[in-house]
Amino acid sequence: MKGQGRFWNKEVECLELEKARRLQEERFLSIVKWAYAKTPFYKRKFDEAGITPDDIRSVNDVVKIPFTKKDDLRISQENQPPYGEHCALPAEIFQTYWSTGTTGFPTLMGVSKTEADYWLDVVARSLYSTGLRKQAKFHHATQLSSFPGGYLFLSAAQRIGANIIPAGAGNTERHIWLISKLKPTFIKILPSYANYLAEKGYDMGIDMSASSIKQVYLSAEPAPPDLRTMIEKKLGAVTYDNYGLSDIGQPEAYECEAHDGLHVIPDWCLTEIIDPETKEPIHEAGREGVLVYTNLVRKTMPMVRFWTANPSCWKTFDPCTCGRTAPRIMSVYRRVDDMIKVKGVNFWPGAVWSVLKDYAQLTGVHRIFLESREGKEYLRIAAEIKKDVIPEAGGLKNALIERLRSALFIQVDEMELVPPGTLQAAEHKDKAVVDLRKK
Amino acid sequence: MKGQGRFWNKEVECLELEKARRLQEERFLSIVKWAYAKTPFYKRKFDEAGITPDDIRSVNDVVKIPFTKKDDLRISQENQPPYGEHCALPAEIFQTYWSTGTTGFPTLMGVSKTEADYWLDVVARSLYSTGLRKQAKFHHATQLSSFPGGYLFLSAAQRIGANIIPAGAGNTERHIWLISKLKPTFIKILPSYANYLAEKGYDMGIDMSASSIKQVYLSAEPAPPDLRTMIEKKLGAVTYDNYGLSDIGQPEAYECEAHDGLHVIPDWCLTEIIDPETKEPIHEAGREGVLVYTNLVRKTMPMVRFWTANPSCWKTFDPCTCGRTAPRIMSVYRRVDDMIKVKGVNFWPGAVWSVLKDYAQLTGVHRIFLESREGKEYLRIAAEIKKDVIPEAGGLKNALIERLRSALFIQVDEMELVPPGTLQAAEHKDKAVVDLRKK
Repeated sequence: MKGQGRFWNKEVECLELEKARRLQEERFLSIVKWAYAKTPFYKRKFDEAGITPDDIRSVNDVVKIPFTKKDDLRISQENQPPYGEHCALPAEIFQTYWSTGTTGFPTLMGVSKTEADYWLDVVARSLYSTGLRKQAKFHHATQLSSFPGGYLFLSAAQRIGANIIPAGAGNTERHIWLISKLKPTFIKILPSYANYLAEKGYDMGIDMSASSIKQVYLSAEPAPPDLRTMIEKKLGAVTYDNYGLSDIGQPEAYECEAHDGLHVIPDWCLTEIIDPETKEPIHEAGREGVLVYTNLVRKTMPMVRFWTANPSCWKTFDPCTCGRTAPRIMSVYRRVDDMIKVKGVNFWPGAVWSVLKDYAQLTGVHRIFLESREGKEYLRIAAEIKKDVIPEAGGLKNALIERLRSALFIQVDEMELVPPGTLQAAEHKDKAVVDLRKK
Repeated sequence: MKGQGRFWNKEVECLELEKARRLQEERFLSIVKWAYAKTPFYKRKFDEAGITPDDIRSVNDVVKIPFTKKDDLRISQENQPPYGEHCALPAEIFQTYWSTGTTGFPTLMGVSKTEADYWLDVVARSLYSTGLRKQAKFHHATQLSSFPGGYLFLSAAQRIGANIIPAGAGNTERHIWLISKLKPTFIKILPSYANYLAEKGYDMGIDMSASSIKQVYLSAEPAPPDLRTMIEKKLGAVTYDNYGLSDIGQPEAYECEAHDGLHVIPDWCLTEIIDPETKEPIHEAGREGVLVYTNLVRKTMPMVRFWTANPSCWKTFDPCTCGRTAPRIMSVYRRVDDMIKVKGVNFWPGAVWSVLKDYAQLTGVHRIFLESREGKEYLRIAAEIKKDVIPEAGGLKNALIERLRSALFIQVDEMELVPPGTLQAAEHKDKAVVDLRKK
């Protein structure tokens, strides 16, 4: 029977640490053997590293295995279309997804029926831990196509017994209408879009902080603490963070009601935090490294030591007040991939928002335009001002340019303040940057 | 065990006619009693007609029951938000959908877990009858949000054991890339978008008639025979039609491999064809009337004698070569709702396509702009010409204006021929008309 008290799957969520360790080790050793025996991709990786599965005798031996990077998956799928040389059981595939892919073509990902079923349980645990219950209305406000965050989350919500409202991405007025009409208590949404939704509501004369929404499941992009605070205030609700990449099987970690880090999921993934310099695992709390995952369940397309390029750290190994036993990691606020070069400097688009959010005159909705003008890179930022705000001539603009320069370490060439509703809402991930530079 | 030979659910699909009739009658009498006893909406309808469920003793007595129209549902939901006075079990709702709604706000529709499960079986029967099988790749190229044609069809395909590819609406290049990469055999798509997809392929230098696609499940808009022929040729595949409205529980009828009309689904819906003048049922084949449906399974939000505004007729009551026993109706080529007033004349947007499709120089992609100019209605039609076609000065334009005038009975004020790719593809239903007239 699933769904007891605070837990969807109490047996695994509260598994005694030693038992969890044994279960994880057993699955880990089995998946390593399988990946080597069944896929040319891992066979070659192991051979090149001069190891065989016989060298992997415990979880600690994971360090001997080379990392798998996103580009490895792309090349693997180019060599052997469509699922790649890392696919062991193409005929078993029952659901095909693809990552959004910021550059080039996306990578494909398939899971079998058994794996999809296990995955659903993991998603259900995460939704349940953030308060979704039987008969609750689950408003799904993120993209439904292509990525597991759509279909899979709707199915998992149904497994819990919730009433699904498959609204999808876009059409903000429709979302607001549905919320006012159906009074959902739970919403799954991009953090930046949650902020936009609230602002749009205010523009329409609706106080979204008085809406029916009580839980906000933040999805598919980083949610820094100040953005979360703003969403919680504007929507009058509690936010829950999680971490996950489609390639591995999102989520890989999720927040509980204690809001004290993200619980890893030992029966689903082996979680490592790796020092990016030495490539050695970090075992102590508080020291930042890169998240690396091995999925322990998916045999159809094994994912062994996937290098996420996302920095995080162990938060604590202590028991959580919620009763879940798994260790916790820190929320992931950025992706190394998000970093782009602008005027020769590393530029993290999220830093722009971090500045803009401090200005009460702005809605937070913005766009970053990278252009080429007379052979030089030109950085133009457009930001929406709130309704009825008339910025005094130049004052706000100049203040913003100055604050942005000191935060970004580069000069903003042009700062535009535009009326609310001018900029298309960032209804999808990674839409804040419009790169018009010649490549 | 589901999925035997040609049938997903042989027991009901090949049910002996007399048994089907008895099952239908039993469910019909039960749903009528239920709707009256449990909802103020039907109680009032019955009371106003001076009848009670005791007056309904057989399926033939259905004629005593008043029709339910789309506007009745809207008013019902305004009176008692959100699900309306026709909702018997709001707390049981497990999936909420809403119709696209061409005018005003959409109507909401909810089903219970049991009903959703039955519905899935009906959808699976329809997909199976058009050739979807275990391990086949099911490319879903229609909208995934809001309407049951999305989530429900993905789930039904999984019930069959197919590999789902949840591509959703939009992003034509992505569809073409996925088709070339994953080689799906089965696609679910809007007829107009299927045509656009093929044209887009040709523009990109890809012969879509040589693609992996073998079955095309036409969805969510009417597919006249000449459009079907064009799609079959351009995609090198067989098309299958079906009929369904979300409010009742689509599909309500579907085509089998015999391609000889659409089988009704006696255990799911009571199908009537009603003379729009006399409001009497038509029992003979070949005479056109309006489709009226009573869903026989859905008790959460009963739908009794729903007036679809779609014209059709009985095609035959004879046994089908496929082995299915249910009578068949003719395909539905238009919706009465599609009819709009232009310059005081009834105008059916589909008629424009019927003219354009005869011109080899055109891609078929078009837009109909209704504007107000100097206080008068102005009809502008833009159509894409094929790549490398240079229409001789004015000749094609004038020919089109003349043909359209005689087909539509109104003057086209301006005919624009634009290069391929200029017009946004009709990735959603009912996007061909852009009504810019002042209301």
